[in-house]
Amino acid sequence: MLRLLRRSSALYSKSRNAYAIATQSLCGSSAINPSVGTEPCFSTLFQRFGVSEGVKVRMMTPFNIRCISIPVNTPPFMEHAITENNAPSVKLLTASNDDHGGVIVDLKDPMDSDLFVASLRASLLLWKQQGKKGIWIKLPIEHVNLVEAAVKEGFWYHHAEPKYLMLTYWIPETCNTLPANVTHQVGVGAFVMNDKREVLVVQEKIGTLQGKGLWKFPTGIINEGEDIFVGAVREVKEETGIDTEFVEVLAFRETQKSFFEKSDVLFLCMLHPLSFDIQIQELEIEAAQWMPIEEYAAQPFIQQHHLKYGLDIFFAKTHKGYGGFSAVSTRSSFSNKPSHLYVNSSYLNQSLLSGNDS
Amino acid sequence: MLRLLRRSSALYSKSRNAYAIATQSLCGSSAINPSVGTEPCFSTLFQRFGVSEGVKVRMMTPFNIRCISIPVNTPPFMEHAITENNAPSVKLLTASNDDHGGVIVDLKDPMDSDLFVASLRASLLLWKQQGKKGIWIKLPIEHVNLVEAAVKEGFWYHHAEPKYLMLTYWIPETCNTLPANVTHQVGVGAFVMNDKREVLVVQEKIGTLQGKGLWKFPTGIINEGEDIFVGAVREVKEETGIDTEFVEVLAFRETQKSFFEKSDVLFLCMLHPLSFDIQIQELEIEAAQWMPIEEYAAQPFIQQHHLKYGLDIFFAKTHKGYGGFSAVSTRSSFSNKPSHLYVNSSYLNQSLLSGNDS
Repeated sequence: MLRLLRRSSALYSKSRNAYAIATQSLCGSSAINPSVGTEPCFSTLFQRFGVSEGVKVRMMTPFNIRCISIPVNTPPFMEHAITENNAPSVKLLTASNDDHGGVIVDLKDPMDSDLFVASLRASLLLWKQQGKKGIWIKLPIEHVNLVEAAVKEGFWYHHAEPKYLMLTYWIPETCNTLPANVTHQVGVGAFVMNDKREVLVVQEKIGTLQGKGLWKFPTGIINEGEDIFVGAVREVKEETGIDTEFVEVLAFRETQKSFFEKSDVLFLCMLHPLSFDIQIQELEIEAAQWMPIEEYAAQPFIQQHHLKYGLDIFFAKTHKGYGGFSAVSTRSSFSNKPSHLYVNSSYLNQSLLSGNDS
Repeated sequence: MLRLLRRSSALYSKSRNAYAIATQSLCGSSAINPSVGTEPCFSTLFQRFGVSEGVKVRMMTPFNIRCISIPVNTPPFMEHAITENNAPSVKLLTASNDDHGGVIVDLKDPMDSDLFVASLRASLLLWKQQGKKGIWIKLPIEHVNLVEAAVKEGFWYHHAEPKYLMLTYWIPETCNTLPANVTHQVGVGAFVMNDKREVLVVQEKIGTLQGKGLWKFPTGIINEGEDIFVGAVREVKEETGIDTEFVEVLAFRETQKSFFEKSDVLFLCMLHPLSFDIQIQELEIEAAQWMPIEEYAAQPFIQQHHLKYGLDIFFAKTHKGYGGFSAVSTRSSFSNKPSHLYVNSSYLNQSLLSGNDS
């Protein structure tokens, strides 16, 4: 869906190299891309794009957040580097094609920033001639000297991890269809009950609950690349030493702006205990115990309105046959990547679940 | 849980300012933080940390990804700037305290990189004296000239969005407990059926399904800050013009490494149609229609094993009383932020749902 973005204006100039970085607010302007020349450039609107998953992704903020004029004193040797004799005199950046008509540059070796600019400009010219669309450059933190140069050539930030920064650039004059960054943190809370109707609870040694005497279920954040059902079992093991097996997701809660502007989804999981001797993680956990569920429920903090939902769910699970979502191993329909489907499997075709129906 | 990270080694030197950026692999080394001086520094191990949500978060990769020696030719005026006459001669960075003993710097105005370095060093000294822990610096893309300087002073990347880069620094000699970046993209798929047992399906104009003639449910990615139940309704409206109301989440699927190293969770949602005249989104959608569910199911692509789960779920919903998770407005237990709990609410205490039991 096309969307207009409102942006503030900022003008910035630098004496060493005559250029301007400006942002303009747009309404219906056609797309013009930064090119070798001195004309200011304007870009376009926000749009959606389909990807290999068969699920459309959010569009990135278009690069018209900033418009960059190429310095007037830059010799046009880049064009000569490509067109004359068809023999580039500047080394092009090594890139691989992605699945959407773009390229990815994974810069491994250090480079002088001036040489990088020369290579980048030559490469952009070539990619433009080749009809490439989105350009991705992954800069390891060791190559931080190239970040400013990339941004001044029209790239903008896409995402970052401790060891690298990913920047992107959109070549065509059509709407930018590059996918946006991820948006959610995923956590788990573990409901573990033994045969004596005692639930596994902990008191935390650090964080905002420190020293408050609250007994709560083990909780934690899923690691990157870790499945939800795996993370739940891991968290319980780490905090209490108790081995468990995942049963199902009983519910989940979504909260907005829980981590900067990002959101989080917390999956409340039911786990079945396989061991019972507690060994706490000294660094984070003050204490842990098996507590009668009635005692857990009687805590004043738990009696607050929103936490009573949890009690209701647990009671419904243990007394009313509440059906949660268990994990079924499958594959993503369009990318064929391994996946896990969380579903109330008691309703599903059992032959399908056993894999007999292929 | 303490974890060791394996890292590659890289050595880099720059002639203008004598420093070294090196990475070392560690095993059990104690934490030493970069300080004003010339000793190389080594950092520590990965660890977990509790935050205000009552949910522990993943730890960041410690800054010992790189060790930085302060240039020997840097005059120690920074210390003098703080200690002599207690009157700093260098302007400190404006910062606000966070909830975990750290500070956040949101740099608004442009700065010369040399002045920034001076202010940053003075500020770090002060924060260290004050016992501060994690330092966060948000650099708008307009201030890209400061990125290299920040990294050379010991900061590393935390996350980025198109318009800014967030960098962090850990002051104490204890384990770095800063939370890691988010990990998941969240999408929705919409199952919309009318009273004639026809399901709303689309053919996409772009992406990997383009031209394949496959009729699929409307799907899309949740926008940043958008609730799942809101996003599902929005996607259907955008793609087909059909108004709907959210009913429940029927299942969800998690796939790893679907977007660089990140994961995605796709929530399959049931929506109830409120209008029936289709108007497709021309940019992305080739066609849309109300299709008899038997015809949808008979498509060869749908008959593939993993997509049959969807058919099973839909049949169970329409014929067997399958219970999904509906959305209940609530608040996060520890941060008190507005949230939505997705749960099989038919099992819950109805007075609790109506808000009478506060």
